[in-house]
Amino acid sequence: MSRPIVLLTDFGLQDAYVGLMKGVLVSHCPDAPLIDLTHGVPPQDVRAGALLLRHALPYFPPDSVFLAVVDPGVGGARRPICARSGRRIFVGPDNGLLWPAATERGKPEFFHLDRTELWLPERSATFHGRDIFAPVAALLAGGALPSQCGTPLSDPVRLVLPLPRRSEGGVQGEILLVDHYGNAVTNIRPQELGADGAPHFRASERNLGVPATHYGAVPPGEPLVVLGSMGYYEVAVNGGSAARSLSLGVGQAIHVRFEPHIS
Amino acid sequence: MSRPIVLLTDFGLQDAYVGLMKGVLVSHCPDAPLIDLTHGVPPQDVRAGALLLRHALPYFPPDSVFLAVVDPGVGGARRPICARSGRRIFVGPDNGLLWPAATERGKPEFFHLDRTELWLPERSATFHGRDIFAPVAALLAGGALPSQCGTPLSDPVRLVLPLPRRSEGGVQGEILLVDHYGNAVTNIRPQELGADGAPHFRASERNLGVPATHYGAVPPGEPLVVLGSMGYYEVAVNGGSAARSLSLGVGQAIHVRFEPHIS
Amino acid sequence: MSRPIVLLTDFGLQDAYVGLMKGVLVSHCPDAPLIDLTHGVPPQDVRAGALLLRHALPYFPPDSVFLAVVDPGVGGARRPICARSGRRIFVGPDNGLLWPAATERGKPEFFHLDRTELWLPERSATFHGRDIFAPVAALLAGGALPSQCGTPLSDPVRLVLPLPRRSEGGVQGEILLVDHYGNAVTNIRPQELGADGAPHFRASERNLGVPATHYGAVPPGEPLVVLGSMGYYEVAVNGGSAARSLSLGVGQAIHVRFEPHIS
Repeated sequence: MSRPIVLLTDFGLQDAYVGLMKGVLVSHCPDAPLIDLTHGVPPQDVRAGALLLRHALPYFPPDSVFLAVVDPGVGGARRPICARSGRRIFVGPDNGLLWPAATERGKPEFFHLDRTELWLPERSATFHGRDIFAPVAALLAGGALPSQCGTPLSDPVRLVLPLPRRSEGGVQGEILLVDHYGNAVTNIRPQELGADGAPHFRASERNLGVPATHYGAVPPGEPLVVLGSMGYYEVAVNGGSAARSLSLGVGQAIHVRFEPHIS
Repeated sequence: MSRPIVLLTDFGLQDAYVGLMKGVLVSHCPDAPLIDLTHGVPPQDVRAGALLLRHALPYFPPDSVFLAVVDPGVGGARRPICARSGRRIFVGPDNGLLWPAATERGKPEFFHLDRTELWLPERSATFHGRDIFAPVAALLAGGALPSQCGTPLSDPVRLVLPLPRRSEGGVQGEILLVDHYGNAVTNIRPQELGADGAPHFRASERNLGVPATHYGAVPPGEPLVVLGSMGYYEVAVNGGSAARSLSLGVGQAIHVRFEPHIS
Repeated sequence: MSRPIVLLTDFGLQDAYVGLMKGVLVSHCPDAPLIDLTHGVPPQDVRAGALLLRHALPYFPPDSVFLAVVDPGVGGARRPICARSGRRIFVGPDNGLLWPAATERGKPEFFHLDRTELWLPERSATFHGRDIFAPVAALLAGGALPSQCGTPLSDPVRLVLPLPRRSEGGVQGEILLVDHYGNAVTNIRPQELGADGAPHFRASERNLGVPATHYGAVPPGEPLVVLGSMGYYEVAVNGGSAARSLSLGVGQAIHVRFEPHIS
């Protein structure tokens, strides 16, 4: 049985790009299960893709091959790479996309995928997902070693996700992602808040109070902050869209002010 | 061989929610085929999800596990449940979503999924699809019995889809769904019309005449009523969008007036 | 092991149509791998579907069953057909959709799918993908011969994709497709340009120069022409959307003017 191949791209599902990549995968490794993590990464948003890939790790089989393509530099000088971390393998462009996931659990090995005889014989300058990454990912899913597909690499491009900044009496974070419900995922986690008092959130010049336990803890149509499923605090509206109601977007600032616990 | 798992959610495919749920499913039951029924249920529209789930039954293997998540009450008091009806198993929130499908063919057994040791060890308050429903659905697909995953339940939330109302010389129904072509699915079926005369449809103050045999029975751009693939009459426009042309939306009234057959 | 079934439709993924079709496929042929080529063909755009289907051939296993449904004439007089070309089998409506793919590599055999006992027992007038094409495609994937599912057909509907026109000192083509990045795929290939000089492209009254090697060869935000992954020249904007920036759409003209090579 081959390893599962988990796909993350910004290709969307309107076009045939994902389908063509899957065609190459099944042509080269017919028994590898293919699982779509998402193809809805905002176009060319390497940071969002990196965050979603890292978050997905604990939910997939530990021997998965993660094939990730958000690749604005396709056809240029950026290298095709793979990384091995434990039993996990990551395949994609060398632009930071793989870095947070590959380095999440210890020091990975990186490889420059320079064995051109493993690629499709004809390569376009615009679609390496199909022509380079898919045939190599299929080989790796079938049991090939990363060292058989490329050369060790010591200087992969790094990408560090933005951390919230501590300020006097509070924390300033930002919005990393907005989902299709309109929930805005911040970069603030419980460990960033500590025990300095009750954390009062503020976004778009609106006070959101302390985190609620779940959406339904506030009346319908009201905004709230809730600890979301990615482990970060999220701004939401019960039964509605926080992004629309509060005009929230990626990169926007989120403020937390600690106030004494009232007992 | 494990049972197939059929997925219906309102998660959309822009985010990674569906992918994460599938990761949990394949991690816990690697050989269960996963089939997407749809992830495009309008956000938090439990009724639309219930209708689509019930409609799907005859088209899927009779031993399928249907994992359905449209869950505006996630994290609150609503219970996670499963239902068994014949060989079919349904898993989802106790908000009526499963009721029409589970009760379609005789009296089902319901269970409160209260065996927390079967869930993921860490549970969010916002994503029970991944943390509770997926691991339990994977167990059921692998052969576990519902009674091994929860406690019998006697009072599941019921959801009754709206029926058309008989009036003098006619029937009044409503629009249940609008699809991406702009076809508007009503809640009127052939059995509701009977033999009282030729049924003349009217919607948005526009006479649509008697049902046509197929889209192409009217000129391009013209509206029509046709018996749709869900077994309900639908308002359509040949080669166009009825929703746009006639300003049709969910909940809007549809009138049928019986007129003597002209022979 | 059954043949893989490759799906191409204009059903979109918002509704449950694709899911229902897959339910029928797995009910009738549980072990056939299902691969989505795309469900995002523009609604009722038979030509776009035909182009995407033909392009996909080399990337899928040579024994694939291609189930393609873009079917504005559903329920009317158009015939359900299948075609065999080499080991490939194509199933879909007789409206030209299958023609370019089926005839790409030699002369195919066509069959009228008239064995109604192989269809679902109840057939709608609006969804032959589920009721006719899926059960037959499942049979073919399981090993049935086309001749067991229908009668030889000598007059399938043909569809010829528009070719660019040679003019004095240049070529005039048109836009065939626009993808979700906003790249505009033309119908001009390298062999159409020949060696008459440097090909200077022009679209929407804007000079685009000679083809670039890749997106990043021009500054961010700048338009370019690049040989795309379908084998046609595409108009793109580095890091942006050519469709939006240059107001490009399907059917729009693209001009190429040959200028002497400067050496």
